Amino acid sequence: MRIAIALFEGFTATDAIGPYEVLSRLPGASLAFVASRPGLTRSDTGFLAVETQALDTMPAPDVLVMPGGPNRKLPLTDAALHDWLRAADRTSTWTTSVCTGAYVLGAAGLLQGRRAVTHWMDVDGLARYGAEAVDARYVFDGKLVTAAGVSSGFDMALALVARIAGDTVAQAIQLGIEYDPQPPFRAGHPRSAPPAVVAMVRAQAGAA
Amino acid sequence: MRIAIALFEGFTATDAIGPYEVLSRLPGASLAFVASRPGLTRSDTGFLAVETQALDTMPAPDVLVMPGGPNRKLPLTDAALHDWLRAADRTSTWTTSVCTGAYVLGAAGLLQGRRAVTHWMDVDGLARYGAEAVDARYVFDGKLVTAAGVSSGFDMALALVARIAGDTVAQAIQLGIEYDPQPPFRAGHPRSAPPAVVAMVRAQAGAA
Repeated sequence: MRIAIALFEGFTATDAIGPYEVLSRLPGASLAFVASRPGLTRSDTGFLAVETQALDTMPAPDVLVMPGGPNRKLPLTDAALHDWLRAADRTSTWTTSVCTGAYVLGAAGLLQGRRAVTHWMDVDGLARYGAEAVDARYVFDGKLVTAAGVSSGFDMALALVARIAGDTVAQAIQLGIEYDPQPPFRAGHPRSAPPAVVAMVRAQAGAA
Repeated sequence: MRIAIALFEGFTATDAIGPYEVLSRLPGASLAFVASRPGLTRSDTGFLAVETQALDTMPAPDVLVMPGGPNRKLPLTDAALHDWLRAADRTSTWTTSVCTGAYVLGAAGLLQGRRAVTHWMDVDGLARYGAEAVDARYVFDGKLVTAAGVSSGFDMALALVARIAGDTVAQAIQLGIEYDPQPPFRAGHPRSAPPAVVAMVRAQAGAA
């Protein structure tokens, strides 16, 4: 089971590390972080740098993971990344995204006519790529699996492991990483967060 | 607000990235990954390498985060790391751990007489460091904050942000990372997971 997680300058760390933490525990998994400009790839905050390999070191992954990030320009205009995504998707068993990684799949032409999700603040933008936005934590549409914002990759990847290796393996991984979430607030989605907090986060994103 | 996350060869990625994702979003945060052997520090799976700085580049952090990992020998016998932890703890506002990072704090002598938690499989070992094990997702004991296994750092860090900057800031960060967890199974803790899965994970850990 060869797993490739494609990074780019300005990726959101958890978009990538959630699926990494779950999928790397699949029995027999081999996983690589790849990038069109390999070396050290820095996250959106600038505080984290991850070692990446060239895209062509992982030409035909079984599972492909595309994380997102607040910098839309770079991954949406990276032709080398898009070429690799299209080629990888032709032979992959699963093609997945987290957060605005869905936009990157879309820019590569892989969302046309598909049901998909992304970060709650960005779902309207999916139509631009011919996708039908779905209100869900993650969406399976054939071999395409898209997940909601940032932290949703844990849920998506556990559901994916269940498809790949069965419920017991997925449950064992969940127990191993003690994924028994107890957020101190009900604030993870606009439908549960205090309206003033939703307005604040929307305003910050608009100003950024 | 200076935040230091101490890594070591074989750290568990999410132990570090959970708190990173939340704490790096604190207004005015400056965050560094540090290690006693700086350069590229590899995670427990071998698939991820993170750039780290020397410990002395962050001598007096406001917030100190100590992640864990399945390799107990290295971080539990690293005198340079322990010296740095003790020195950092003398001036920190918050000293925190995720998973078996609690053991590393314990090895540095920072758990004596304190209430603490770690990964569910390792809670009995806390007594070795003079700590009282608590059954909780995370535990505040004065400025010492310990969290349960791997994924618990998201919950702990959000609770910590609430103490540092107030509930509204914590809720805005939770909404920003869409931390609205929907695990596909109830299997994240031995009290909810199927007994056969608990037995399997315990057996795998015993064999490792």
